[in-house]
Amino acid sequence: MLRKIRLFTPGPTPLLPSAQLAIAAADIHHRTPEFRALYQRVLGQLKEFIGTQNDVILLAASGTGAMEAAVSNLTSPGDKVLVLTAGKFGERWTSLAKAFGCNTEVVSAAYGKTFSMEEVRRKVNPDTRVVYMQATETSTGVRHDVKAVADTLRGSDTLLVVDAITGLGTTTFDVDNWGIDVIIGGSQKAVMIPPGLAYCAVSERAWQRMEKTQSPRYYFDLRKERKSAAKGESAYTPAVALIAGLGAALDYIAANANGNLVEGRKKLIANAEICAAMTREAAKALGIELFASSAPAAAVSALIPPGDLDSGVIVKAIKEQFGAVISNGQGEMKGKLFRIAHLGYFDYLDTIALIGALELVMARVYPSRQVDFGSALRKAQIAFAGYSQTGLRATG
Amino acid sequence: MLRKIRLFTPGPTPLLPSAQLAIAAADIHHRTPEFRALYQRVLGQLKEFIGTQNDVILLAASGTGAMEAAVSNLTSPGDKVLVLTAGKFGERWTSLAKAFGCNTEVVSAAYGKTFSMEEVRRKVNPDTRVVYMQATETSTGVRHDVKAVADTLRGSDTLLVVDAITGLGTTTFDVDNWGIDVIIGGSQKAVMIPPGLAYCAVSERAWQRMEKTQSPRYYFDLRKERKSAAKGESAYTPAVALIAGLGAALDYIAANANGNLVEGRKKLIANAEICAAMTREAAKALGIELFASSAPAAAVSALIPPGDLDSGVIVKAIKEQFGAVISNGQGEMKGKLFRIAHLGYFDYLDTIALIGALELVMARVYPSRQVDFGSALRKAQIAFAGYSQTGLRATG
Repeated sequence: MLRKIRLFTPGPTPLLPSAQLAIAAADIHHRTPEFRALYQRVLGQLKEFIGTQNDVILLAASGTGAMEAAVSNLTSPGDKVLVLTAGKFGERWTSLAKAFGCNTEVVSAAYGKTFSMEEVRRKVNPDTRVVYMQATETSTGVRHDVKAVADTLRGSDTLLVVDAITGLGTTTFDVDNWGIDVIIGGSQKAVMIPPGLAYCAVSERAWQRMEKTQSPRYYFDLRKERKSAAKGESAYTPAVALIAGLGAALDYIAANANGNLVEGRKKLIANAEICAAMTREAAKALGIELFASSAPAAAVSALIPPGDLDSGVIVKAIKEQFGAVISNGQGEMKGKLFRIAHLGYFDYLDTIALIGALELVMARVYPSRQVDFGSALRKAQIAFAGYSQTGLRATG
Repeated sequence: MLRKIRLFTPGPTPLLPSAQLAIAAADIHHRTPEFRALYQRVLGQLKEFIGTQNDVILLAASGTGAMEAAVSNLTSPGDKVLVLTAGKFGERWTSLAKAFGCNTEVVSAAYGKTFSMEEVRRKVNPDTRVVYMQATETSTGVRHDVKAVADTLRGSDTLLVVDAITGLGTTTFDVDNWGIDVIIGGSQKAVMIPPGLAYCAVSERAWQRMEKTQSPRYYFDLRKERKSAAKGESAYTPAVALIAGLGAALDYIAANANGNLVEGRKKLIANAEICAAMTREAAKALGIELFASSAPAAAVSALIPPGDLDSGVIVKAIKEQFGAVISNGQGEMKGKLFRIAHLGYFDYLDTIALIGALELVMARVYPSRQVDFGSALRKAQIAFAGYSQTGLRATG
């Protein structure tokens, strides 16, 4: 049979056609009024999408570039920082902090879990210069409690940096009221465009901190980008086409809520939640367990195959037979779990279709379980219909 | 929820991405070596796709343009012709033949049926200059028996013209051995590109007939196109971008069979058959009947809603809630049936997803029937798995 290649990965995610067209058409120079108008418009849209009054910075980099910026700009060698980690991306904060010579303390939780807030409170003290965390840990599908951490830090001089690369557009934040000093996003996630752009919103006290810190930085010097952005430009050559695509994607997200980007973001979050609920109900019917048992993120479902079935077998079969690309576990979770994304440009038809393919694949690669055709799909239908009845259908 | 707009209509059909890119990139002049190379390549590919040694002609027109050409080039006013009709497109042959002053006889069958071969044999006689028919009647989803008609005409001077606009790529033909004198296709069907191109293969005796016929023609004078094509050009300005897209689509169809376009066409037909089987098994579970009870075409399923439910309600609901575009019945069948396409660029995920949407819509717009969620999907899964086991999965 024909097989269309379709991404169900938690980044890159499926591309929005109007953004693809904007990217293809973006044949403009970056030191022109045309670009400055585009850049200022997109920076303004990003503020609304993130939900902040803070200045937003765009970087031609993947999300890790903005993570590095949040370390190199906010620390000096020897600074005490605290990393909250429960997966591969949490570990990246540790690696970055160490690379810049920070005195790095860690609160960790087992993969699939979130960390103990009690332990966080115990480890934070007035010497902690920065706390680094994820909003959602993409490798395990877990949502961390950003607000609880922010509450813990309230009134202190400790900065809070949140990698929300898969969190933005899938999780609710009140960035300024909670006191998130740096929140980081990436282009290949809920905003439906290809990789290559990172963005972050930076609080006033984080800008002040940067004036005193000593870690070396050049390309990722956020102060230079802020100054250039005030003139409608970027410090270095920007990823022009991706910025045009991002503008189109944010237009689309707003258009789904009568032009209101804040409401559009809420609908996007609800959309991921419905796709996640359908997938998880269906998975249960196939004997597949959700890895994030306590605090699952809407962005992605990390799923444990039944019995001793290698998750790589499922990933391979679903690609080979149906052209659908899902993710294996990362690092030590490879073979143990597989991941299906819900963030960004997915709709009901995408979601139910993948569940159908998963049901067929499970029947083939794990026949000992006796898959009853339609049983997983039925659970997904019921989950979707439940959301429709509670009014979320009106978000379409 | 987000809704992606997706076509499930029997033309236009979903666009192939590589063809879209070729169309977007086709910024070439038509009186250049670049265009001549493209044109000759595509005409050669079309011969393989149609499965003929006859010359193939491309027209910047929709399929009806090629239908007109098959009347205006092959008849003189007053010529006796026979039209075989069982639907809206059969009736178009009658209208065209009358518009060009033919003495038009008709063998007709009720909508949803095919005509009686006995009646065809009775009505054909040595005076019949041309027989016009469809391979598949898109308005009713019925497949006509082209080979039986061809067999009836064998040895006579009567030409056979087949509108295979939805038939090519969904039905098996042996054009030259059966003796089909003109077979007609359109771009917005199984070949996965937008409307605007018609093509036809013309037998040697049809070319000879054209030298004697008197009906007026100019733009659609096939002899002029044949002469130009021999030089690698078109007589009038061709639809350059669509021709580039058609080349890319035929490349794709061949690539699915290791570069063999004839085998690729067979796989495309098998693909439509699997999509059709899934859809029809699912429809039954919802109390929906197939309109073409005896000779259903793989190209499209024409489906009758249960009870007194207006088919337009289903068409509207599935568009509004899910963004999926299906077709209502045409003319007097409006409100009585709806149509879901299988021809061209559809895969398993497309098909199962639409069935999921149809199940949800039926539960909502016809609650008296008590739709059991998953029941239609289950039938589709079983149908697909059956095909997979019999080896058709290997066509992917």
